[in-house]
Amino acid sequence: MAAASRTKRNAFYAQSGGVTAVINASACGVIETARANKDRIGKVYAGRNGIIGALTEDLIDTGKESAAAIALLRSTPSGAFGSCRYKLKSVEANRREYERLIAVFQAHNIGFFFYNGGGDSADTCYKVSQLSESMGDPIQAIHVPKTVDNDLPITDCCPGFGSVAKYVAVSALEASFDVRSMAKTSTKVFVLEVMGRHAGWIAAAGGLIEDEGIPVVVLFPEIPFDEKKFVARVDTLVKKHGYCTVIVSEGCHHPDGTFLAEQGTKDAFGHAQLGGAAPVVAGIVKRALGHKFHWAVADYLQRAARHIASKTDVEQAYKVGAAAVKLALQGHNAVMPTIERTSDTPYKYRIGMAPLASVANVEKFMPRNFITPDGFGITPACKRYLRPLIQGEDAPKFRNGMPVYATLKNVAVDKKLPAFELR
Amino acid sequence: MAAASRTKRNAFYAQSGGVTAVINASACGVIETARANKDRIGKVYAGRNGIIGALTEDLIDTGKESAAAIALLRSTPSGAFGSCRYKLKSVEANRREYERLIAVFQAHNIGFFFYNGGGDSADTCYKVSQLSESMGDPIQAIHVPKTVDNDLPITDCCPGFGSVAKYVAVSALEASFDVRSMAKTSTKVFVLEVMGRHAGWIAAAGGLIEDEGIPVVVLFPEIPFDEKKFVARVDTLVKKHGYCTVIVSEGCHHPDGTFLAEQGTKDAFGHAQLGGAAPVVAGIVKRALGHKFHWAVADYLQRAARHIASKTDVEQAYKVGAAAVKLALQGHNAVMPTIERTSDTPYKYRIGMAPLASVANVEKFMPRNFITPDGFGITPACKRYLRPLIQGEDAPKFRNGMPVYATLKNVAVDKKLPAFELR
Repeated sequence: MAAASRTKRNAFYAQSGGVTAVINASACGVIETARANKDRIGKVYAGRNGIIGALTEDLIDTGKESAAAIALLRSTPSGAFGSCRYKLKSVEANRREYERLIAVFQAHNIGFFFYNGGGDSADTCYKVSQLSESMGDPIQAIHVPKTVDNDLPITDCCPGFGSVAKYVAVSALEASFDVRSMAKTSTKVFVLEVMGRHAGWIAAAGGLIEDEGIPVVVLFPEIPFDEKKFVARVDTLVKKHGYCTVIVSEGCHHPDGTFLAEQGTKDAFGHAQLGGAAPVVAGIVKRALGHKFHWAVADYLQRAARHIASKTDVEQAYKVGAAAVKLALQGHNAVMPTIERTSDTPYKYRIGMAPLASVANVEKFMPRNFITPDGFGITPACKRYLRPLIQGEDAPKFRNGMPVYATLKNVAVDKKLPAFELR
Repeated sequence: MAAASRTKRNAFYAQSGGVTAVINASACGVIETARANKDRIGKVYAGRNGIIGALTEDLIDTGKESAAAIALLRSTPSGAFGSCRYKLKSVEANRREYERLIAVFQAHNIGFFFYNGGGDSADTCYKVSQLSESMGDPIQAIHVPKTVDNDLPITDCCPGFGSVAKYVAVSALEASFDVRSMAKTSTKVFVLEVMGRHAGWIAAAGGLIEDEGIPVVVLFPEIPFDEKKFVARVDTLVKKHGYCTVIVSEGCHHPDGTFLAEQGTKDAFGHAQLGGAAPVVAGIVKRALGHKFHWAVADYLQRAARHIASKTDVEQAYKVGAAAVKLALQGHNAVMPTIERTSDTPYKYRIGMAPLASVANVEKFMPRNFITPDGFGITPACKRYLRPLIQGEDAPKFRNGMPVYATLKNVAVDKKLPAFELR
């Protein structure tokens, strides 16, 4: 028994950065697959509030959760164990934190590290793998991809993105129908602000409503904002169709790099107003063309909207979680499962694998040939890329009018080490 | 035949004011019920862009639409024939417009006027009925209730509201799960702005997430904003739960009547910034407590969100449309079908009837006993009222990842009268 428990090592799973509608589906994939391999993997511990839980030895024993509760994670948005925005510095600048992570892993006999996040966490994951090896007690570190921004390299798409894309496309379509109804005497321009500080993938999804006959202008972070050209484009569309919809990325910026959302707006007290890009764009339209407008800022609603998640995205999120465990059991280390598209129509993909050294700290932007020459729309190539990712619906169960989402018990594991101070 | 066509009169249907996720379900109820009574009702004409279509004799022949297209209206948000914001003045101030309406109705042998809107259109509907009677050619005018604001009197609730309520409750729940995940190191307060200029019904729906364990503060238009008390309440909740969600009504205002959304915000050029209440509330929290925040403005997304409509609401919207036709066939005039609740649990209702004279221009606000004594939440009585209205899901069909919504042909009827100038 004692020998067996030494060869059978525990796993650690943590969620990192902004959460999504499907990151818990990845957690579900990790935990269910680990449970199916009890002969090789012992406990699955989760970090409370992400990597901070590992640093402070605040571990959650996922074994205390029922199979039903874990299964429900598949249809629960947000991060069930808590996430955090905490980027570890370089090993040189803060070796203390990496050594602490490894000490916590050793204290709890953790041999598998599954880190569910974006580019930053891929970097952390990679370093933990390297450092633990150099310290003579290798930990198999597998990164599970997650980001609504869809900006991870190598993988064809990133779990979390497909559901935001579906939310944005569906919401933009519905609001556009609304504006179309009202345009004769009232609102003629509707502006929807979506996430995407550096990459325009989410805004691009709004461009899909063109296929439903909606006149739409998309403002990407990749294309510096040209107010004159933008106003002319809106003017043309409103003259032709009577109305139009504008999808603006939060990262849309002027040629000098200033974000539209930060153009010195002040409130009545002279405090800088943390406004959105949408009201700024709406104001530009109003001043230039006089049209009545409405604007919306989707913010967290878009990345939390599990009720309108893409079935494709949910499946992929689950599969990369499950694949992470399988890759670990096959002996892989410092890798990330990827989604490899093999066909657009019909959509086909398989789960592949990428070395973390190639993933960490690389951002994938919209290729220029996915954006129309005028910079205000998406091309057929972009639509071929996006369309499969929003396929299928996977509504949660509802009870008493509301979706049924999991809130776990999140039972703490007894600590074994002295406290550690986060600096 | 000629005699029959004279006794068989046509119907006119128009959509008025802000559209909803289910106003087309009412249109579907009107048209399908009229089609089922072809022996008594001839053509169903719709006003293109609401009552403006009647004034300008821009009528749509709904008979050109297939049964399938009309059936699809039941799951299509927005106003399929176009709506308008155009309030007729009093008969005294603008007799010309009322006489024109009646002239158009006479020219097209219209004996039934179904007007689908809120308080203003109930008033118009009533006046048309009165005036046509005084002019010796009575038109049976039936008002079909519609408003997301839920502010019509007599009827227990108003079609359009239940679906917004469900959208707001579900979205607020999802975003709250997100904030709960992030609160340790990042966002602690999430602010969601919802519609409701005068009445707080929509904001109240956000209060339902308390039943899911979410700490929530609701800001109603009925309760003047008390910044100090509000900050103290947020502080208490964040200290206790680590995070909280704020639902703010667009109509939330200071004791002097100034809207929060209009507190003199100016952009970099000194132009008044048409901001939302949400960023203002978020800024107040940031300055007073220092918490990181996120905010969203749902705007049109909330009232157009047919994909997460309440099944109860869709059914009621259809039924009041159908009932309007039945009431007309029974000889009623100047009335509105209402929803009469007969039981909370299990929820039961029947379709009743109210005289338009009692409906027109009366706004129904949240009763004080639906709001908690501190002014920041909803009471059990309010929850008993709201809960049935968000029951059931009625997802549209999806194709290629997107909901299938109707866009009608909207074929124009030949004009018979000289042009009429809108003043």
